[in-house]
Formats: sequence, structure tokens, C-alpha cells
Amino acid sequence: MACAIDSGRLWDSLMEMAAVGATPAGGVRRLALSDEDRAARDLLVRWLADAHCAVRVDDLGNIYGHRGGEQPGAAPLVCGSHLDTVPTGGRFDGALGVLAALEAVRALNDARQRMRHPMEVVCWTNEEGARFPPAMLASGVVCGQLTLDAAYAARDARGLTFGDELRRIGYQGSAEHRLPAPAAYVELHVEQGPILERTRTQIGIVEGVEGISWSWVAVAGRASHAGPTPMEDRRDALLAASRIVSALRTLAGEAPGVRTTAGHIEVTPNTINVVPGAARLSADLRARSEDLLETAWHRLQEICAAIAKEDSVAIQVDEFWHSNPTPFHHAVVETVAESARALGYSSRRMWAGAGHDAKYVADRYPAGMIFVPSRDGLSHNEAEWTPREDCARGAAVLLAAMQRLDRML
Amino acid sequence: MACAIDSGRLWDSLMEMAAVGATPAGGVRRLALSDEDRAARDLLVRWLADAHCAVRVDDLGNIYGHRGGEQPGAAPLVCGSHLDTVPTGGRFDGALGVLAALEAVRALNDARQRMRHPMEVVCWTNEEGARFPPAMLASGVVCGQLTLDAAYAARDARGLTFGDELRRIGYQGSAEHRLPAPAAYVELHVEQGPILERTRTQIGIVEGVEGISWSWVAVAGRASHAGPTPMEDRRDALLAASRIVSALRTLAGEAPGVRTTAGHIEVTPNTINVVPGAARLSADLRARSEDLLETAWHRLQEICAAIAKEDSVAIQVDEFWHSNPTPFHHAVVETVAESARALGYSSRRMWAGAGHDAKYVADRYPAGMIFVPSRDGLSHNEAEWTPREDCARGAAVLLAAMQRLDRML
Repeated sequence: MACAIDSGRLWDSLMEMAAVGATPAGGVRRLALSDEDRAARDLLVRWLADAHCAVRVDDLGNIYGHRGGEQPGAAPLVCGSHLDTVPTGGRFDGALGVLAALEAVRALNDARQRMRHPMEVVCWTNEEGARFPPAMLASGVVCGQLTLDAAYAARDARGLTFGDELRRIGYQGSAEHRLPAPAAYVELHVEQGPILERTRTQIGIVEGVEGISWSWVAVAGRASHAGPTPMEDRRDALLAASRIVSALRTLAGEAPGVRTTAGHIEVTPNTINVVPGAARLSADLRARSEDLLETAWHRLQEICAAIAKEDSVAIQVDEFWHSNPTPFHHAVVETVAESARALGYSSRRMWAGAGHDAKYVADRYPAGMIFVPSRDGLSHNEAEWTPREDCARGAAVLLAAMQRLDRML
Repeated sequence: MACAIDSGRLWDSLMEMAAVGATPAGGVRRLALSDEDRAARDLLVRWLADAHCAVRVDDLGNIYGHRGGEQPGAAPLVCGSHLDTVPTGGRFDGALGVLAALEAVRALNDARQRMRHPMEVVCWTNEEGARFPPAMLASGVVCGQLTLDAAYAARDARGLTFGDELRRIGYQGSAEHRLPAPAAYVELHVEQGPILERTRTQIGIVEGVEGISWSWVAVAGRASHAGPTPMEDRRDALLAASRIVSALRTLAGEAPGVRTTAGHIEVTPNTINVVPGAARLSADLRARSEDLLETAWHRLQEICAAIAKEDSVAIQVDEFWHSNPTPFHHAVVETVAESARALGYSSRRMWAGAGHDAKYVADRYPAGMIFVPSRDGLSHNEAEWTPREDCARGAAVLLAAMQRLDRML
């Protein structure tokens, strides 16, 4: 019996999972370690068990579904992604990678195809970092980039900790269940950008993950009454923050490949008739090389120093998270490329602009990623969409890559 | 016995009142109809009763302390201000006007000086509008600019209504207790700006209240992932909002006497790694003439239309509150000026940039205001400060103006 992805089964699983935390606008709100996340986990665990996987949970709440291999002692081939979403997220970001990995196992089972290596489906906890910053918290600990204590102590906006919430939803497992050193790791994901759709390409061969720098920019001005305070006497923190937002955009235009975003802002006291006394905003910088990233960060510092002087405010820039640009493993990248070619799919090589758990895995083990198109390039948006055929093509490349790696490694 | 302000007694009352809702930074948080506001009201009612005033409360929660006059049927001379504050307010904004009016009554009592007109000390409810927008809600109803139903239905950020909170704190009185048509109304207030201090002037003779326009500016962009979304594909609502904040500042420079403030901003989803899909900010415009105010508002509309086009976002500007520029009553203004001169205080004529209850009173009755210096021009700030002597000088001018008006009217 030929081993092939069942596109209908994959799609049905995606849609059933999307119902967990579904929003009225067609998106998904499934924040890490929320009740919705627990329900999604419970569903995945049931599906993994139904697919004859041995399910285990580690001390970060990462879920692994293990399918045995023929060769004693062989390291596992691992594929997966995450099930948590941003507050107004879509149906495919994360879920596609987990459920395509599950579909690969189901397809292998249907064809009664044994592999030399064991295979593991992984679902990483809190990839988004939307509830518990920073992003990729659990894979960061498993791959040695963050400490367990730091992860457990991470707090959400209401002050609840990662550790307490993990226990609350019943997904605190054991450290001995963590990911064993894999032979290779491959993650399928939606592109979350417009390149594949715009170039009518079916598969993205991901060569690496861009570097990311996250900073808080704090502006201290002086609160004063919006009525009687002459314009020239103001030390308006929101005005200065606004100039930083505009300058961040300009900064992206100064260096090719650098992208900048101010996604979060808060102002004090945030009252109509008070000149804002303080503001805090986030600065997200991304680039393919560490040089570009550092140059951009130093430019941000210069810009803030200039605005501070001009607007008579104090500005502090604190980088609180930095992820180095990470090229993927050559053999894994080439295996993905050959798998797509063998299946007759059009493909192009590209870098991931978003952080992914594959980045932390790649710091220690051979890893790679596969992208499929996102309609209108939209992601982190309730309108996120990837057509059924694209999902199936991505899963087929994932399965084929697993089979090739199984023969090769 | 000479009738004179007791500067020590006035100061002690100010400091005792400032302890109600005192903040660690030396300011006051006494939001309208909060527990702190209730405590401040209870204290004022006690002091008014101790000063032999007949105390009554109207259906908006405005408190009146009535001191009888000699001439039957004479309209009252009214003075006062408010006791509510912004979230991080100071000790003098509002409280000085109420407690100086109380001190004027105490001084008249001490001197056993009867007046022809009755005198009323008034404390207006929710002047700031910080909790229940718009500002000057209660004087607006009493003076016929707003309806009672609209006032009762006003909601705070938690969804509680003005009416419910007024009942909760026990300060819903009767409509028949509202302000009777006064012979004249005079309100003492801190300047809340730097002009008097900078020009070393002791008393501000307020000739009128500038017009104020409050709008919400709503920006609709498109949320997308901060990583893979190319800069040129973004429809960033915060970037557009930031350009509006900057343009608002420029707009103030285009016309002399126009002041503009963006005091409030909120962004959706407000997450570090999501390009903001929506933003809402406040636009506060102020000017001495209706022409200047309207021109500024139309410029804001033009600016927003241009930014909407350039940034591929939709922008809507909705003016939700408008207060016309209001000159004060000639005879009241001149009486204040003569009172200051007779006391030997330096003075200058100026307009109020902030809204005050005196504005609504002036729409129907003869009214005026007295300003005293604010240190560093600061107000709506916990560091707000007016020295004891300035408070006493302001109260002395208020008392003298009341006595002059009593003889004159």
C-alpha cells in the first residue's frame, strides 16, 4: 500500500482543532496554558493515542507522541510545532505543523510502513510568548537557552506564573520525558508572509531563522494639564514615543532586509486632558545577519538619544530578548528541497522572519523547516488562511523528508 | 473686627483635605463618586455646618453651603469649585476654590459681617470628567447644557454609571436644591500653567474660558505578523496614529493660541510581535475663538485623510464634546481686577485654557474667575504646588470681590 497523506483527514483535524478557542471572526484565541490550550492538548493526546503513539509530557508541558522504529537505539526523527496562539490568532499558525506531523504518522500506520528511526510528534508549549514572554519558552529550556526556573517564573499580564498555570491545567510532566537528541527535526509552518503566494510558489525551503531583538523603550516626560500648559513648555512622552515609532519605520528603510515593528504601547496617565508623562513601547528588530541587527539596534539608540534631547524627555532602551540569526542544517535543508522536487511541487529558498521552535532546536541539533503559502501573507490575524491543497502539499513534503532522512541518517 | 482671610486656617484645611486620597508621591487620587470623593464630601459638609451654613445636596450631588443675607429675596453670591481629581492629581486643583470659599465664609463669620446677599459655597460633582466623561458634567446639567439622563448614564472605564455611583456614596439629593440664579459667581483656581509664575504675577484676572474640542480618532489598519510581513505590505495602525500625534503638534504651531494634545492612546492587539491592526487616540484642541477652533478641527480632518491615504488605513475623526469659547461677565471681571488692585497685589489679565465649572455658569449667569500661580506651571500632576501665601492672596481677592459685588449688585 502506497504511503500518502490523506488531505481530507488532515483538513478535518485542522478544522476540529480550530474549533477549540474559535472566535466569532473565524480565528482562534488559544493562549498558552489557558483552558482552551488544555482542551486542544487533550484532543491532540487522544489523537496521538489513537495513532498508536506512546504519549509523554515533559516538565515544560511539551507533548511527545512516540512511534517506535526498527533499529535499536536509533535517535528519533522529530517533527511538530505548537498549538498556542496569539490573542486574535488564526487556524494554521502552529496547528498545521503539529497536525501534519500527526498525519504523517497516520499515513505511515495506514501503509503499515515501519521506519528504521523512531518518529516523534512534538507539541511545544508557549511558542507565541503572547501570554508568557518571551516566545519559544519551552523549546528554549529543552534546548538549553533558558532555565527552567526562569520559565516557571514567567508571568502573564494578570500576574499568573507559567509554572502555576502549567500545574493548573494538568500538563506538568517529568524532566526525563524531554526531547531526546534527535537524528533530525523538521517543522512545517505557514509562511506568515506574502512571498510564496505572490510568486505562486507551493513550498518554501527554509534556510534559516532571522535574528530577532526585542527591546522596551521607556520614555519619561512630565504630566501636565492639556489646557493651560503652553506647547513650548511640554515634555510630552507620547509625542516622543510617536516620533520613535516613525523613526523605527524609517530605520527599516535604511538597511535592506531589516524589519522593525512597534507592536505595543502604553501611556501614563492616558487621560484625554493630561499631557502624557510617561510612555513605554516595544521595538522588534529582525534581520538575517547579526551585523545588520546590531547596527539597527545602535541606530535605535541614536535616534532615541536625539529625540530625548529635542523633546526634553528621558528615554531608555532595554533589550530584553535577543535571538541570533540561525542557519538550518545543510543536509536537512537539502532533503526538504529534494522531497519537494520529487513530489513535483514548485519551491523557493527563503528565511523565516518569525521565531520558531525550530530555531532553538537548530542551535543544538540538525533541523529545518518547510513553509506553505499564507493567503494575503496574513498571520497573527483571525483571517489567516492556507488552502486545503497547500496544507496537504506541506504535509506530503514533511512525510517524504522524514522517509528520506530515515534512509539517509 | 476687620474681616480677613486666616491664611493658616485656609492652609490647614487644604492639607487636611489633601490627605483624603493622598498618594505616596504627594498627590491626590480622588476620582468622582469614589470612596475617597465621599470622604472628602463628608469632611466639607462637616466644615460647612461648623461655619453655620445650611447644607443641601442636589440631584447631581452638588453640595451647597448657604449663608443667609440681610436683604429678603436677594439672589445669592456664589463661589466654589470641585473636590474630584484626575487619577494622579494634585492638592490644589479644585480644592483651593472650594476651601477658599469656605474660608471667606469663616472670615465673614469671625468678623460678624453680614452681607445684603446670601452667600453660597458650592462644590461641583465630577468637574474633571476623568472618571465620567465629559468634564464639568454636573454644572453642565444645572446650567442646562446637558440632560440629567445623560449624566446619570455616563459610565466609567469599569462600566459603572454616574447615577449608580452617586447613589452608592449617598450623595443623590433633590433637584429642588440645585443652584438658584446667582447674582454673581466667582471661582478661585490655580492657574495650572506657568504664566503667572514666569511673570512674577500674584493674581490672574480671568477674562474667559477658551473653547475646547474633544475627538476620538480611530485608525483601522490590518494586524499581521511582525516577522514575515514585508515593510511595504503593512497597514500599521500605530504608525498612522503616531503620525497623527506628530501632526497634531505641528498643527498647534500653525495657528497662534491653538493648543493640541493627544493624551490617550490604545492599540489592538498591543502585542510585541504583531503589527497593530487598530488604534484609537484622543485629540484635544483648544483656542480662544470659535474660528481658530474650527479651523484646527478641519485641519485635523485633512491631516488624517492624507495619512489614511499614505498609510493604507482608514481613519475616522469623531468630535464627541465641544465647549465654545466663553468670555466672562464684564462687571465680575472688573470687580476681581479692582479687588486685587485694592489689596496691592500684582495682576494680569488672561484666559483659562482649561475647562471650569465657571464656564457653564457663565453661559447663563454673571461669572468670573481668579487665578493664583502654579509652581512650574504643573497641574494634573502629583507635584502640583501653590505656596501658602498665594493661596491666601487668592482667597483674599475672592472675599474682597464678594464684598464688592454685595455692595454693587
